[in-house]
Amino acid sequence: MRKVAIDKLVSLMKDEGMDAVLVSPSEELKFLIGFSPMMCERFQGLFIKNDGSLFYLCNSIYTGELELVLTDHRILTWYDGEFMDEAVHRLLGEEGLLGKKIGVNSTAPGFSLADIAKKSGITFVNARPILEEMRIIKTAKELESLRVSASITDKVFSDVLKFIKPGMKEFDVKNFLLNEMIKHGGTKPWALLASGPNSSYPHYQGSEREIEKQDVVLFDFGCTYNDMCSDMSRMVFVGGVTDEQRKVYEICRKSTEAGEAACFESAFIPDIDKVSRDLIADAGYGEFFTTRLGHGIGFMGHEAPDIKVSNPRKLEKGMAFTIEPGINLPGKFGMRVEDVVAITENGTEILNKSTHDLIIV
Amino acid sequence: MRKVAIDKLVSLMKDEGMDAVLVSPSEELKFLIGFSPMMCERFQGLFIKNDGSLFYLCNSIYTGELELVLTDHRILTWYDGEFMDEAVHRLLGEEGLLGKKIGVNSTAPGFSLADIAKKSGITFVNARPILEEMRIIKTAKELESLRVSASITDKVFSDVLKFIKPGMKEFDVKNFLLNEMIKHGGTKPWALLASGPNSSYPHYQGSEREIEKQDVVLFDFGCTYNDMCSDMSRMVFVGGVTDEQRKVYEICRKSTEAGEAACFESAFIPDIDKVSRDLIADAGYGEFFTTRLGHGIGFMGHEAPDIKVSNPRKLEKGMAFTIEPGINLPGKFGMRVEDVVAITENGTEILNKSTHDLIIV
Repeated sequence: MRKVAIDKLVSLMKDEGMDAVLVSPSEELKFLIGFSPMMCERFQGLFIKNDGSLFYLCNSIYTGELELVLTDHRILTWYDGEFMDEAVHRLLGEEGLLGKKIGVNSTAPGFSLADIAKKSGITFVNARPILEEMRIIKTAKELESLRVSASITDKVFSDVLKFIKPGMKEFDVKNFLLNEMIKHGGTKPWALLASGPNSSYPHYQGSEREIEKQDVVLFDFGCTYNDMCSDMSRMVFVGGVTDEQRKVYEICRKSTEAGEAACFESAFIPDIDKVSRDLIADAGYGEFFTTRLGHGIGFMGHEAPDIKVSNPRKLEKGMAFTIEPGINLPGKFGMRVEDVVAITENGTEILNKSTHDLIIV
Repeated sequence: MRKVAIDKLVSLMKDEGMDAVLVSPSEELKFLIGFSPMMCERFQGLFIKNDGSLFYLCNSIYTGELELVLTDHRILTWYDGEFMDEAVHRLLGEEGLLGKKIGVNSTAPGFSLADIAKKSGITFVNARPILEEMRIIKTAKELESLRVSASITDKVFSDVLKFIKPGMKEFDVKNFLLNEMIKHGGTKPWALLASGPNSSYPHYQGSEREIEKQDVVLFDFGCTYNDMCSDMSRMVFVGGVTDEQRKVYEICRKSTEAGEAACFESAFIPDIDKVSRDLIADAGYGEFFTTRLGHGIGFMGHEAPDIKVSNPRKLEKGMAFTIEPGINLPGKFGMRVEDVVAITENGTEILNKSTHDLIIV
């Protein structure tokens, strides 16, 4: 149980006028109590009240595992034989939470909250921002784990350059990435591997296309190490590169590097976004860079601080985030060069060390 | 696009007084439109209105992939540069949905719904039951895929009996199951493998324990075939079985078989639950069987109909569900024997063919 984090969360929920915060199974829950049960359709979660007390509410099938972790806290249970909303109504009533304002985390399921709101007159509000705020300044140990996590993606990228060949399917390369991350000590590996026109879809999920000569291939992948996430994007050109591809790649590369150069303690976040965005706009591709510049990273792959014009705050020591400007030409190709950046005792650290130079394999 | 299913959903949402139903990325979405994008923290989903019209609302990073699928429907987009709740407010306003009652599916994220409800005066309600009702009667083709999916778990269980040995870690056996399901043509494999006392946690997630002689080992695993799920549980006794283990196993086995024997077209679901539950209660273990008897299965691993006392409806031709009574002795061991059962043209079919006999390896 992280007492300091929970104290901070209680302070933040009071500022927001919340009576409690609900944290369903997730990285957010694992951060707080060191464990996160399976999440099925049965409603469950940790309730932290604004007086600092807490309890876990779950179906009885999860009680045994939670008792091993929450040794000093109440676990309130309901059974499959009961109706969930009625049981939760009774249990929240015992806790004085009927009709109250409860913040919810990133995984609290909307369909269950709808039933509970109706039955128990509860107003659910978004507590994701305060849960992220609670974790936004990384400890020295967390920063070290972020470095190791990033180094795993660097090693795997180096390995895959020797592996990838025309004729392979996207899933061949994707599976190689996933297995190599495990071999290098990573956990929870994930990978997006998009070739040719598929690279123009920022969150492409397919894997069936055959990689051809003259293809641009987008790598976006990561894992966790000590629960801390990595997330790196690189481009590889198979067999050669066209003039247009080279031109767009160089704009992306320069935009990433300009953004990274604008990162330092107390830098105003919208200014960082502007530096990278102006560079792409001035080169004539502004309409094809439609995403934020980057996102915070830590226990969750995407967390605070977002690096975007609408996040008017300053960088602080202990923050970690990605810089990943991209140019996506629909149906043609998409490109981005993404590193994880952290503001540490050493100044601004680019945690990924893989080259930004144009790579032809 | 499944026109017939959408017509049924529209009829059901009218009965419930919903103005629209929101389906975020999920199996539910894949069922309806044949595709489900990645789900990140950016709100998105298909909105089906009660006049039968529909549109997709998403961040612009998903537009390209969705345009390939939703060729005849509107895709309304917002950008990272906007605030999500403001953009959604504008777009739902254009659709006449401000202040309306909107049903949500199983993955619509509570934290985003909370922001939207506040900004746009929308009342979100639980639409999971009507989305399940829409799919509750399986087609002949879906039943055939359920048979194949179940046969994959049967084959893999047969394989693993030759593989499992004392001294292996739980994850060794779990990884074997996952890989074998893929080899036999399954997709999206999952497995719960719990040895010794870990078997008493119905949704155990760990995998680090070493399997010892005299251990009971619980297998609960499945995959999909043509998007149709399998889900089978069996027990294996390593090196021998104690008298108590044999006694509890026989009660579980008989309870499963009695429940299955009570399944036929027009059987009243609470009666099925009672048959299996009474058998365990009469043997003195009633307090250790705390879950429902089973759950429907199809496009989702858990869907309608729940087989439980509080689901007062009759079995119909085309329904498919599990029968899985269990006895969980906390900290000692847990046991269950689970099959998928379907009511088909052939009568009651037990889709899993693996033996219920006590197995010692």
